[in-house]
Amino acid sequence: MDNSIINQHISRQFNKEMEDIRNKVLTMGGLVEQQVDLATNAFMSYDMESAEKVIQQDQLINALEKDIDHECTEIMAKRQPAAFDLRMLIATIKIITDLERIGDEAARIAKMTMRIEAADYYQDKYYEIEHLLEMVKDMLNGALDAYARTDTEEVIAITAQDHKVDREYTSITRQLITQMMEDPRNITRALDMLWTARALERIGDHSCNVCEHVIYMVKGKDVRHLSHEELEKTVNEVR
Amino acid sequence: MDNSIINQHISRQFNKEMEDIRNKVLTMGGLVEQQVDLATNAFMSYDMESAEKVIQQDQLINALEKDIDHECTEIMAKRQPAAFDLRMLIATIKIITDLERIGDEAARIAKMTMRIEAADYYQDKYYEIEHLLEMVKDMLNGALDAYARTDTEEVIAITAQDHKVDREYTSITRQLITQMMEDPRNITRALDMLWTARALERIGDHSCNVCEHVIYMVKGKDVRHLSHEELEKTVNEVR
Repeated sequence: MDNSIINQHISRQFNKEMEDIRNKVLTMGGLVEQQVDLATNAFMSYDMESAEKVIQQDQLINALEKDIDHECTEIMAKRQPAAFDLRMLIATIKIITDLERIGDEAARIAKMTMRIEAADYYQDKYYEIEHLLEMVKDMLNGALDAYARTDTEEVIAITAQDHKVDREYTSITRQLITQMMEDPRNITRALDMLWTARALERIGDHSCNVCEHVIYMVKGKDVRHLSHEELEKTVNEVR
Repeated sequence: MDNSIINQHISRQFNKEMEDIRNKVLTMGGLVEQQVDLATNAFMSYDMESAEKVIQQDQLINALEKDIDHECTEIMAKRQPAAFDLRMLIATIKIITDLERIGDEAARIAKMTMRIEAADYYQDKYYEIEHLLEMVKDMLNGALDAYARTDTEEVIAITAQDHKVDREYTSITRQLITQMMEDPRNITRALDMLWTARALERIGDHSCNVCEHVIYMVKGKDVRHLSHEELEKTVNEVR
């Protein structure tokens, strides 16, 4: 084989490895999305079987995180990538940390659900949580989509959605505190809803983090801790 | 200059860069420790000036995170480090993420403190929070120490401490719920204490994460998601 064939071979092998990592991240992302949905619905419908499933599946997510992390560092050590490839590996290591923590929040909701006494369960009045769930599911899905398409077009809309999530969360908190004050018998149930709402709000934050890592990967700009306006400006500037 | 002198020069320069990163992480860590202490004490003593200071200083932590992160990726791209050096850079990138999130928890306590109405403030009965604060401060300090000394001797004790923190947190939660049920006038104050206790419990978790990254850096083993017993075994095995 002459040198150019060897180089072609190495380059093909490298591309295959990068593609493999990308696919695993998307598998992990899909599983995390499913966990968020399953856990919140288990809480709302007092479904112990689903809650149990979420707790079991959390281990798959943890295993995927370690596996992807290991592959990324192996490639860094072996192939010494530069420019976009290096940024993609660093962004991936950070993205899977956020995905794993979203998985943790889902597991937290599931564990709490398992502790609810049957007597404390109310069948209705979960529409605020349902709305919050829909909003953060959209954000997470959009963030994973941006990663899959290495495209930052939609990220501004996702981070803007986070402000709506924060407002919704604050409004839910206020309502729940009022309910607790009106009747102390509501306290246990209201606290469970408060923890669930809090977990969903944090899932929104982690989805924003994923978006920021995608911007770093695609544009090479670190946009963390910027205001929404500054972030929008930076994304448009380097388009 | 002959080649060996050039190599010596490059190697000295590289060591200087790695040392610089290490020092910055320790500066960031010191600042984060200070923030946790300041924020929790501001909450307990209703000290608005300190709470304000915590919120302002959070920006310093964010800036340090971006700065250190940038330096780590620059070195990866420029010098293509291997073995311990690569692990140290990857561990550092992860450690500063946890430190930044500890900073966020401190800022959260401070922001909540700023929202407390003077009429809702009680001067005593913060000893459970005080105890929790002492425990997580110890953990954070030990974790930073392990990083500074690239030594995993103490990490087992730190992760064991996390179980005590979790138990203490659960006990505080139960007490607070009882207080809320006994007298609805306690609800606002009890919720503030609940959020503070929760933030401290999370700071304990992040300190454990830092320990796990130090183990990866020193021993080359990924010990995340292991039970305490498995973690202890792994650390001793590869000693």
